[in-house]
Amino acid sequence: MTPTRIALRAALLVGTLAMAASAPARAADDGDVKDFLLDNGMEVVVIPDHRAPIVTHMVWYKIGSADEPAGKSGIAHFFEHLMFKATTHHAAGEFDRAVSEIGGSNNAFTSYDYTAFHETVPPSALEQMMGFEADRMRNLILTDDVIKTERDVILEERRSRIDSNPQAVLDEEVDATLWQNQPYRIPVIGWMQEMEQLNRPDAKAFYDNYYRPNNAVLVVAGDVEPDAVKAMAERTYGKVARGPDLRPRIRPVEPEQNTKRTVTLTDARVSVPSFSTQWVVPSYHTAKPGEAEALDLLAEILGGGNRSRLYQELVVKQGIASDAAAYFQGTMLDATNFTVYGAPRGDAKLADVEAAVDAEITRIVKDGVSDDELERAKTRYVRSMIFARDKQDDMANMYGSTLATGGNVKDVQEWPDRIRKVTADEVRAVAVRYLVLDHSTTGYLLPQQQAGN
Amino acid sequence: MTPTRIALRAALLVGTLAMAASAPARAADDGDVKDFLLDNGMEVVVIPDHRAPIVTHMVWYKIGSADEPAGKSGIAHFFEHLMFKATTHHAAGEFDRAVSEIGGSNNAFTSYDYTAFHETVPPSALEQMMGFEADRMRNLILTDDVIKTERDVILEERRSRIDSNPQAVLDEEVDATLWQNQPYRIPVIGWMQEMEQLNRPDAKAFYDNYYRPNNAVLVVAGDVEPDAVKAMAERTYGKVARGPDLRPRIRPVEPEQNTKRTVTLTDARVSVPSFSTQWVVPSYHTAKPGEAEALDLLAEILGGGNRSRLYQELVVKQGIASDAAAYFQGTMLDATNFTVYGAPRGDAKLADVEAAVDAEITRIVKDGVSDDELERAKTRYVRSMIFARDKQDDMANMYGSTLATGGNVKDVQEWPDRIRKVTADEVRAVAVRYLVLDHSTTGYLLPQQQAGN
Repeated sequence: MTPTRIALRAALLVGTLAMAASAPARAADDGDVKDFLLDNGMEVVVIPDHRAPIVTHMVWYKIGSADEPAGKSGIAHFFEHLMFKATTHHAAGEFDRAVSEIGGSNNAFTSYDYTAFHETVPPSALEQMMGFEADRMRNLILTDDVIKTERDVILEERRSRIDSNPQAVLDEEVDATLWQNQPYRIPVIGWMQEMEQLNRPDAKAFYDNYYRPNNAVLVVAGDVEPDAVKAMAERTYGKVARGPDLRPRIRPVEPEQNTKRTVTLTDARVSVPSFSTQWVVPSYHTAKPGEAEALDLLAEILGGGNRSRLYQELVVKQGIASDAAAYFQGTMLDATNFTVYGAPRGDAKLADVEAAVDAEITRIVKDGVSDDELERAKTRYVRSMIFARDKQDDMANMYGSTLATGGNVKDVQEWPDRIRKVTADEVRAVAVRYLVLDHSTTGYLLPQQQAGN
Repeated sequence: MTPTRIALRAALLVGTLAMAASAPARAADDGDVKDFLLDNGMEVVVIPDHRAPIVTHMVWYKIGSADEPAGKSGIAHFFEHLMFKATTHHAAGEFDRAVSEIGGSNNAFTSYDYTAFHETVPPSALEQMMGFEADRMRNLILTDDVIKTERDVILEERRSRIDSNPQAVLDEEVDATLWQNQPYRIPVIGWMQEMEQLNRPDAKAFYDNYYRPNNAVLVVAGDVEPDAVKAMAERTYGKVARGPDLRPRIRPVEPEQNTKRTVTLTDARVSVPSFSTQWVVPSYHTAKPGEAEALDLLAEILGGGNRSRLYQELVVKQGIASDAAAYFQGTMLDATNFTVYGAPRGDAKLADVEAAVDAEITRIVKDGVSDDELERAKTRYVRSMIFARDKQDDMANMYGSTLATGGNVKDVQEWPDRIRKVTADEVRAVAVRYLVLDHSTTGYLLPQQQAGN
């Protein structure tokens, strides 16, 4: 119910990783996945998984912070909170209690591109969950009192999660620097001065525009049959009237980047310095065929875990870093970011760690990757996929996040084959094209004594 | 007709400087300035100036690039161009030719907060000018062909003025970095990828929303009498129907800034390196009483010309800089920027120049300014004002820019007195509050051989 950027990134990574499953699955098989539309435009994906008597029920709204009106930052996340308030049919807290009483769990999260609500319950409770979700899709009671109370909650959430955390403050200003035009520059939780002004008319307009069956994707993974899910969905969600057609999600995009930028936060609460460097790169939704898959493998080879170049060189061999890694956040509607980061160990200097990371980037840009290294990366990837796929909620996240960012079921299912086809030349090509150090944005988190001024 | 950021800044500076006139004026006297509204809501300011048989006629629309819809950057400036096209009464070029034939001059410019059109002509041609301006306020013929042709012109303007000029490219990315949320982050000329998409419906909507008498300020300075100007304005502009009421110009504002940021452009075309450091500070429209006046004097003392601290210390005494200065851009609707800059001379290093500039900032923050120094700065200011006020178009710009950014005639007229009241403590207070090096944004323009990578 309360996203942080860090948690969000982790979730997205899991989502991405989960997409590479290729070995025979013990859990769901792609061929069993069913995808259909209700008459009111709501998309439904059912992923049968009969290993345990449990079901994951998720509703993904195709509305995130990057869709917010100018000056209304935080409203998408604010609305996620408001969805837990009273409706014309249920008192506030009733839904949560119903989930607890049957030993289930529930939560929600907001990202740049979507807002999702989910419950994990026994299959016998699925229709009840659908009833609750369908109810709050249209029947929330948004009084000034509800708005004011919950606005205080999100303001306090911002104070505790962002403003009291130097890394989070830095991350916000790095994002606001990396993105010169695209709305990912604005924090999901919102800017304080705009959150303070969010009001009932804002919330009502947001609800009426976006919380509609034709702007939602239902994902049900678990011990269920598609036909039964369809019948239940028709009895619950199917009764919610279709809303007006939404405008295409065409947002401002990035201009060309021509400069090297740095963002430095010096804070007495920081003990170990660290840095991260980011580039704007295409996402699965915006990339040319094969580029996003190559970026995924580039991140894996460069910095995806203990066998990666960065880890082996900086942590194991040189021993100058406590950590060094790379990641690519591919499941986004618009252009996304590719990130490398590192932190020094012992007496090593941050500048030495950064220079060593830059040297690895320069090396991969110059010499590319070997076929052998690429095959090993694919194998590692696939292994972690099998593990990820074994988890029902990861499967649900994988489909939900893809469908909420412009993809479809086929994109998910064909993805492992596309990954297998990536060549070493293609990996090098994306490194050459995108990892230009002179066009990067680097954030530095520094202890007070290392301050420049 | 074609603004650049550099030219714009110069124009704004002139506008600001012109406001401090306090000695008995040879030109217009404040008391003679008349301000009134036409029935359709158009504001009119008349500044009699009988020294020469000439008149400056300006129409200021309260619409600038910072008011543009998301994703439509450049439309305000694009529209400035379109205003020179055919109307239902006049062929394209007819207005320009009429001005030339009587030996006059005309032009237009677009800024973040306004778009202005002006002509300088003999008084006998004033009503003709009003007729042309009133006509193009509502009667433009916006065909797809006109849009396409003029769009090619602004795209070429962007290529030649920005993309082929390393300083301009750097300035754009510094702005996009300094401003984390406020629309001044977006270049007035627009981002290329958005300019390419501007179309007829965009232009039509923009015209219908903003080119209305109730969103315009007419400024007439010169050898005219207010009553005669009023009668002429009623016969011309007075016939244009009032448009719908406009929403208040409330734009996204800046969050707190917590980091030090740098933006570096390395380019083979650069021969001498330079840097500039900027801070977000209040404008005359957003400042608490006295703060903007104190910022104006701080800029004057720190870096306003040859007698300033930066110039005396870096250029004259240390001899390490070819130039070093400071400026404050006060006449803006929203928060604005305070800037210092410097460039090395001979063998001096850019880092040494920056360190010397930072030392002067630290000194003024720590020790403030002396009463004597403040008085001398006020005197220098006043002298330059007298000179500026002597120019009819500067007077017109001063009133127009103030009225287009939330001020009124009284603000302009009382401004010299407010400047005179600023104390040394107040100057130091704004330095302490705003010139925090750890919360600044610095742009570096570097020759290729000094590249970090």
